[in-house]
Amino acid sequence: MSRVLLKSATEGTSEFSGALARLAARGESDLSAVEPLVRQILEDIRERGDAAVKDYIFRFEGRRVSQLLYTDYGGQAALDGLGSDVRAALIAAADRIRRYHERQASGLDSFEYKEGGVLLGSRVNPLDRVGIYTPGGKARYPSSVLMSAIPAQVAGVRAITLASPNPGAEVRAACHLAGVEAILDAGGAQAIATLAYGTESVPPVDKIVGPGNLYVAAAKRLVFGQVDIDSLAGPSEILVLADENSDPRLVAADLLSQAEHDEASYPLLLCLSTEFVERVATELPHQLESLPRRSMAEQAILDHGVALVVRDRQRLAEVANQIAAEHVAVHVQRPEELAREIRHAGAIFVGSTTPEAAGDYLAGPSHVLPTGGAARYGAPLGVYDFVSRSSVIAYTLEELGAQAAHITALARAEGLEGHARAVESRLAPSPRQNR
Amino acid sequence: MSRVLLKSATEGTSEFSGALARLAARGESDLSAVEPLVRQILEDIRERGDAAVKDYIFRFEGRRVSQLLYTDYGGQAALDGLGSDVRAALIAAADRIRRYHERQASGLDSFEYKEGGVLLGSRVNPLDRVGIYTPGGKARYPSSVLMSAIPAQVAGVRAITLASPNPGAEVRAACHLAGVEAILDAGGAQAIATLAYGTESVPPVDKIVGPGNLYVAAAKRLVFGQVDIDSLAGPSEILVLADENSDPRLVAADLLSQAEHDEASYPLLLCLSTEFVERVATELPHQLESLPRRSMAEQAILDHGVALVVRDRQRLAEVANQIAAEHVAVHVQRPEELAREIRHAGAIFVGSTTPEAAGDYLAGPSHVLPTGGAARYGAPLGVYDFVSRSSVIAYTLEELGAQAAHITALARAEGLEGHARAVESRLAPSPRQNR
Repeated sequence: MSRVLLKSATEGTSEFSGALARLAARGESDLSAVEPLVRQILEDIRERGDAAVKDYIFRFEGRRVSQLLYTDYGGQAALDGLGSDVRAALIAAADRIRRYHERQASGLDSFEYKEGGVLLGSRVNPLDRVGIYTPGGKARYPSSVLMSAIPAQVAGVRAITLASPNPGAEVRAACHLAGVEAILDAGGAQAIATLAYGTESVPPVDKIVGPGNLYVAAAKRLVFGQVDIDSLAGPSEILVLADENSDPRLVAADLLSQAEHDEASYPLLLCLSTEFVERVATELPHQLESLPRRSMAEQAILDHGVALVVRDRQRLAEVANQIAAEHVAVHVQRPEELAREIRHAGAIFVGSTTPEAAGDYLAGPSHVLPTGGAARYGAPLGVYDFVSRSSVIAYTLEELGAQAAHITALARAEGLEGHARAVESRLAPSPRQNR
Repeated sequence: MSRVLLKSATEGTSEFSGALARLAARGESDLSAVEPLVRQILEDIRERGDAAVKDYIFRFEGRRVSQLLYTDYGGQAALDGLGSDVRAALIAAADRIRRYHERQASGLDSFEYKEGGVLLGSRVNPLDRVGIYTPGGKARYPSSVLMSAIPAQVAGVRAITLASPNPGAEVRAACHLAGVEAILDAGGAQAIATLAYGTESVPPVDKIVGPGNLYVAAAKRLVFGQVDIDSLAGPSEILVLADENSDPRLVAADLLSQAEHDEASYPLLLCLSTEFVERVATELPHQLESLPRRSMAEQAILDHGVALVVRDRQRLAEVANQIAAEHVAVHVQRPEELAREIRHAGAIFVGSTTPEAAGDYLAGPSHVLPTGGAARYGAPLGVYDFVSRSSVIAYTLEELGAQAAHITALARAEGLEGHARAVESRLAPSPRQNR
């Protein structure tokens, strides 16, 4: 029974192509079923403000709240009250995450240069107000607060509001460490609506980031345009790349550390032989035995787990790029070499001494990563998500004169005479006399 | 009659706050009316492929086409056949746009560094396939092809597909200059669906950018997640900042060069006295008189034009930041000084010798800019829109040992025992014997 826990499919079979096709479709979520309700929540909160938010919190979260926004949320006291090991770990994580994002921010500088008589530039500014959503319930993670809010803080965002229903001490401590200005005590679509439109007691934000359930995803998509949003997050994924020399015990441990997140998560193995798959499959039940979240992890492996077998290292890289997983763990020999071939991944964990868990908590890069194949075009949440940019253009009159023929030729080719005249009127001091 | 063409509102009056409130809502577009039809188009094309695309081209564009995708679209011949002034201007524009974006790309380098026994990095890769939408009809602009495709080309995108119904010689010539691989001869929601899902004859892309009508916007929002999209573009806008020394003739010319784009566009003036507004209002009819697109420009001014009067330079900057316009033209004295105060704008045109038209065609930065207030959080289309990023993390075993206590403390605080064990199993060579 233990052996069938992890399905296996070898390249060239219909099982293999079927598994790849199912993986290719994993990012699709049909939000149309929940959209009518979410649309109604958005409209109602936009119209009735605080009162409507409180109604929905009662209806969907079963809580009666008198206050929505807390600027004095007791973050320092919450931090002081934590066990010393967790407190020290949170502080160390915040430091490491901040240092990584400061390095990342150095690529985001404004620039300005002259080319003849034209000054050209790009100005980078932090966003004014950002909303960060973190779910309540079984996925209530202070680490996600650090991983989302610190990039915004490093960008220089003036005001960060965290939405989280009934946040505990760890979350409030993390908010304190990450410079969160205020906590909105709400979840679900009602939290997204409150952040997007603002109410009497909650100022609206310019961008909302962070993962949530189907209602949150539907709400984010509907408020897009009113505010900016990050990509719509789906279930978490790991793809472990292994060869004959990989340690099945460590491969199994990495698959389980993904599987225990959620029944919906994807623990995926990509390797070179069915023999290796069997060694991992033999290892899994031993490690599952005493895992507190055993039933969840088992369900994730049964529903979404698959081991894909390909013929050589080249195919490991190619298939990994096709899957474009959130986390890619490279357990093969000479892991740096293979890792360089991975073009589509949220985060790459190089070598078997690098557990994904280190990246989830402490390494430094944000653990908020593109899922569902969005690594084809996406990026880890970063400082670049919390800035706006403006182009700057300044011509001298002489340079405008030198370029006028080109500008007016293109304007007139597109039928925009007014554009051509706006150039020519600068060059002819008193054109009306010329008519 | 000429004087009332441009409505005026002075700060402190209800007209002023009403005008600002209407401007704040300008970015809202209700796509729900067209969504059911668009959803049906998307599903049908996904199911039936090429045949469905051709059906919709006939239904919505009135054309029967036998081929959808052209890789051999005769770009060089189209360029050679253009009038010499337009040809030279297109080539000059492509060169300038490419140089600006090469400068911009230098901020997007991958990085990697060691911190003790951890290697941390960020790898930046160009997207594999990008789709660029450019509308047909009255807004058929070769300049938009250059301004959208060249940033993608500079990013190193492997394959750029341009969607444009029945493209003319100028558009095909611009495609050639911008390295467009193939032209999809379709418009509307059917073009977006074809690019997002792919068909028998058209490969799917990873990201779709470019402005379009309501159907295009609704389709882009619905395929978001399947592919990445840029922000949903609305009508074009200019905000001219003027003081008593500004030249009403040039201010009027800039307002009209915006107004002639589209009846829906926003020509906005922000200045220091009603007297100055009157001088501009007196100028407008003179310049409108012989403008080929007069009726369109007049309608735009009547429907959306407004002159806002504030008391001092400080308020010019503050209100401009509140409006967050696509184009901000700074006509005041010491324009650089005021321009530095503008935090929210797509592009800033510094000084009255810098017409917006120069930026539309030749300066270098992309003219594809955030509209409808999206400049609060957005950016000009740029090289950064066409890359994906992956984090890289590599621990030595020693460093993992040194950090293990922090990682496991956080994992266990979040109830994720499997995460903690994935770390510990690396450090204990044979943990099963220890049970």
